[in-house]
Amino acid sequence: MRLLVVLMCLLAGCLAQKPHPCRSPPLLSGALTVSTQNEKLWAYAQYLYDALGQRVRLRELGTYQNKSFTQDVLLLFREGTMYDIFENNHTCSKRPLKGVFHPMAIPKDASLLGQAILGSSSGPGQGLLVNTWTGDLHGETGKYMSTVTEFGCIPVSTMYHTVQFGWMMTSFFNNVIGISDPGQLNPPDFCLDTEMKADEEPVDFFHLFRNKH
Amino acid sequence: MRLLVVLMCLLAGCLAQKPHPCRSPPLLSGALTVSTQNEKLWAYAQYLYDALGQRVRLRELGTYQNKSFTQDVLLLFREGTMYDIFENNHTCSKRPLKGVFHPMAIPKDASLLGQAILGSSSGPGQGLLVNTWTGDLHGETGKYMSTVTEFGCIPVSTMYHTVQFGWMMTSFFNNVIGISDPGQLNPPDFCLDTEMKADEEPVDFFHLFRNKH
Repeated sequence: MRLLVVLMCLLAGCLAQKPHPCRSPPLLSGALTVSTQNEKLWAYAQYLYDALGQRVRLRELGTYQNKSFTQDVLLLFREGTMYDIFENNHTCSKRPLKGVFHPMAIPKDASLLGQAILGSSSGPGQGLLVNTWTGDLHGETGKYMSTVTEFGCIPVSTMYHTVQFGWMMTSFFNNVIGISDPGQLNPPDFCLDTEMKADEEPVDFFHLFRNKH
Repeated sequence: MRLLVVLMCLLAGCLAQKPHPCRSPPLLSGALTVSTQNEKLWAYAQYLYDALGQRVRLRELGTYQNKSFTQDVLLLFREGTMYDIFENNHTCSKRPLKGVFHPMAIPKDASLLGQAILGSSSGPGQGLLVNTWTGDLHGETGKYMSTVTEFGCIPVSTMYHTVQFGWMMTSFFNNVIGISDPGQLNPPDFCLDTEMKADEEPVDFFHLFRNKH
């Protein structure tokens, strides 16, 4: 009986816990869409994310200023290198990558906007418990708003303001914990001989889209 | 053994089924946010929805053209009446309501854009299976995009284009099947003597916000 009371208290304690900033799983793969307030940019991407090796692969297709584009990039933050991969003709370009790797996480100084159920809590499989956080962007002026799942800290959506696009919204979906083909996070064989473009401006992850031509 | 095979086939059949347009539960309550591309309007609302009685109650707070507003409206489609309710001083205004009641549903002629998991399918409580549909707005030119849960047909988000606001996005959350206080869908006692404003332009549900002052 006493055990039951202790268990009940523990359970009540867990349920009563306030959400805390969290870090997403170190290995994730899935898809995302990026849309911008001024409609200059729209993109769909499949992503692979490896926080342990500080590597990100993005296969995008989208439109930029009413022109469609495709892009396949591999970002290696440890090495400070970014590859543009052209599978169709087995060529690559290699550019310096600026900045440090930022793991997907809710920063410790973020403020909880609220906890909510997407969908409904009235039936099984009908709802998803999420937490929405806001805070100030580091380095830049402006705010961000991030929504992650309560269980697993899986990204759902992120919004922040940019000078070029106005509000920029990224929506994540079909996320899976783990990476089914880790080979995709290494440069392909046909990239190994590629020379770094010395005259190239270093690219910053968050400004990937700004350098679109 | 044969029963097992039949059961397996049934299960496989159910899992392999393509999503179909659906109708949301007739009684729903929850919350929503409305945001617009041109940032003219932002609103948070608690809603009650009764498709059987064709009644909707919306308690909103938001900003319109940088001015904050609150609004408490009861829409009675069967009677073609809309009440503005002012709880603070127990007064009402009563206006004609134009148009027929549209139940929350994915129209039969909608096209499936895709099925996706919000969050992750890698752990329990981490993901939500949703279907996203598009189609042409009836009566008006332009497209809509609606996302609902696969299980329960609960609204998640809706986007459509308006002349006044550009893209208008409604996000639903904390939805519950049923209405805990059905009295909220009747006009309060202090409204019963209110006269219909004869000179008032009829209001259309979808243009509620256009008549904001």
